[in-house]
Amino acid sequence: MQPTDKPWFTESCDECGSAFSLSLTDKQKVHEEQTPFQKIEVYETEKFGNLMTIDGFVMLTTRDNFLYHEMMTHPVLFTHPDPKRVLIIGGGDCGTLREVLRHPGVELAQQVDIDEGVTRASEKYFPELCESNGDPRAELHFADGLKWVKEAEAGYYDVIIVDSTDPIGPAEGLFGEAFFRDCLRALGDDGIMVQQSESPLFHMKLLEAIHTYMRRAGFDHSQTLHFPQPVYPSGWWTCTMASKSPFNGFREEASAARPFKTLYYSPEVHKGALALPPFMQEAFENL
Amino acid sequence: MQPTDKPWFTESCDECGSAFSLSLTDKQKVHEEQTPFQKIEVYETEKFGNLMTIDGFVMLTTRDNFLYHEMMTHPVLFTHPDPKRVLIIGGGDCGTLREVLRHPGVELAQQVDIDEGVTRASEKYFPELCESNGDPRAELHFADGLKWVKEAEAGYYDVIIVDSTDPIGPAEGLFGEAFFRDCLRALGDDGIMVQQSESPLFHMKLLEAIHTYMRRAGFDHSQTLHFPQPVYPSGWWTCTMASKSPFNGFREEASAARPFKTLYYSPEVHKGALALPPFMQEAFENL
Repeated sequence: MQPTDKPWFTESCDECGSAFSLSLTDKQKVHEEQTPFQKIEVYETEKFGNLMTIDGFVMLTTRDNFLYHEMMTHPVLFTHPDPKRVLIIGGGDCGTLREVLRHPGVELAQQVDIDEGVTRASEKYFPELCESNGDPRAELHFADGLKWVKEAEAGYYDVIIVDSTDPIGPAEGLFGEAFFRDCLRALGDDGIMVQQSESPLFHMKLLEAIHTYMRRAGFDHSQTLHFPQPVYPSGWWTCTMASKSPFNGFREEASAARPFKTLYYSPEVHKGALALPPFMQEAFENL
Repeated sequence: MQPTDKPWFTESCDECGSAFSLSLTDKQKVHEEQTPFQKIEVYETEKFGNLMTIDGFVMLTTRDNFLYHEMMTHPVLFTHPDPKRVLIIGGGDCGTLREVLRHPGVELAQQVDIDEGVTRASEKYFPELCESNGDPRAELHFADGLKWVKEAEAGYYDVIIVDSTDPIGPAEGLFGEAFFRDCLRALGDDGIMVQQSESPLFHMKLLEAIHTYMRRAGFDHSQTLHFPQPVYPSGWWTCTMASKSPFNGFREEASAARPFKTLYYSPEVHKGALALPPFMQEAFENL
């Protein structure tokens, strides 16, 4: 079962010892751009729709981004008692922004991505993810997320979603204690931050570090959720929430009565995502 | 991020439009054998331990087989009220057998795989999966599973686990209505069968067909569970249970008090696996 001679995009991960490939149409690459921050490429795949990569790493595809975007958004928004002001750090493809704006109670959703190029490419190649960009509650800022959070008014946000690339390159600072401390300051008393936190199979050390840094930064509670994400290494991914207040479940009734359609998220799936396998529980208990 | 020049094993799936690769040690392939049924190969990977393939398709690796084996076994055994006699069709690597035998109430666990070569290779390259093969409750038969079930005493088994390869080649018959009808006949009144049922992202048509065939075969109830399985296409996998009696949850207390260690399975994870995403629920409701 060697790859046939059709064109493929391949991302290999040396530390994982694995690689993942998507077969491409004859058009292959439809966009390539070196921005001041990173290299953005878009490929046309045979079965996954469009594929965006940054510096050669898979960011998203048309076919399966719903998993990541729904799980980065709805669990945290249904955990906060009444989220009105939401900040998205990164998330330039606007898919998280779209999911946030599905919540009628949200009054302001600010997306702060350092690279305008990502949003412009998404508008062209993932227009469905950008359909809410004109919502009057949406603000798109192209700026340094670290600086944005540092300079934010104390207690201003209800939810901060860190929808970043991997913790190398421009996103590295988004996984550290200093950034988490700034997030804590920028959040209200019931505030919650959520961070994409990589694969349970490959990145348990990083996951443990994220919990440790969140606690050191002053968050008293942190909680990881897991979900499938086929185009990321191992196909199994996580996000990790942190809060000053204890997590006492989530607003299940509101979640069940959500006035929008989801493909993956439901209150039952939310509970399932919180049910960590024993090997993860043990790792976190020993922190 | 092209694969580096190290050696890789790659499985590509044309219908999925994707491929998955594992990096190999310098030894690369450590076993190759054409049995009367199929080609068995074992590779030494850099990060996943040993890898067994059959006819070029990934069967299992040392590192992540716990996900599949635990989820093919514990949910169905904790759903049946008191499983004593368990039949495993396929499962020649003996990993499912090992998990079944962890249940003290099981009195007989028969593994019926058509190809002895799989078990002999597993004994050598996955010895930890074969550690229970000498259990007095274990029977290893190398025979045609279709025929075995057809000739079984009616009502003999409590649980039948169909731990098969993909529905092409020798395993094709294991996904059909006639086989399911034979399973139904071989099961007691509370009997449950479970079938590995491929990826929710790639194989929803097959999943729908499995439910349809199970119902047509006379099972009144069928239920799919989902879980991560990194080395299978999409990294997201399912099994589907079928029963004459309605599924009324599972033995949660027994599951919580299980006298053996699991890495992935727990009663909470069990519930999470039963929580199907809306897109799957809708597909099954429309059958």
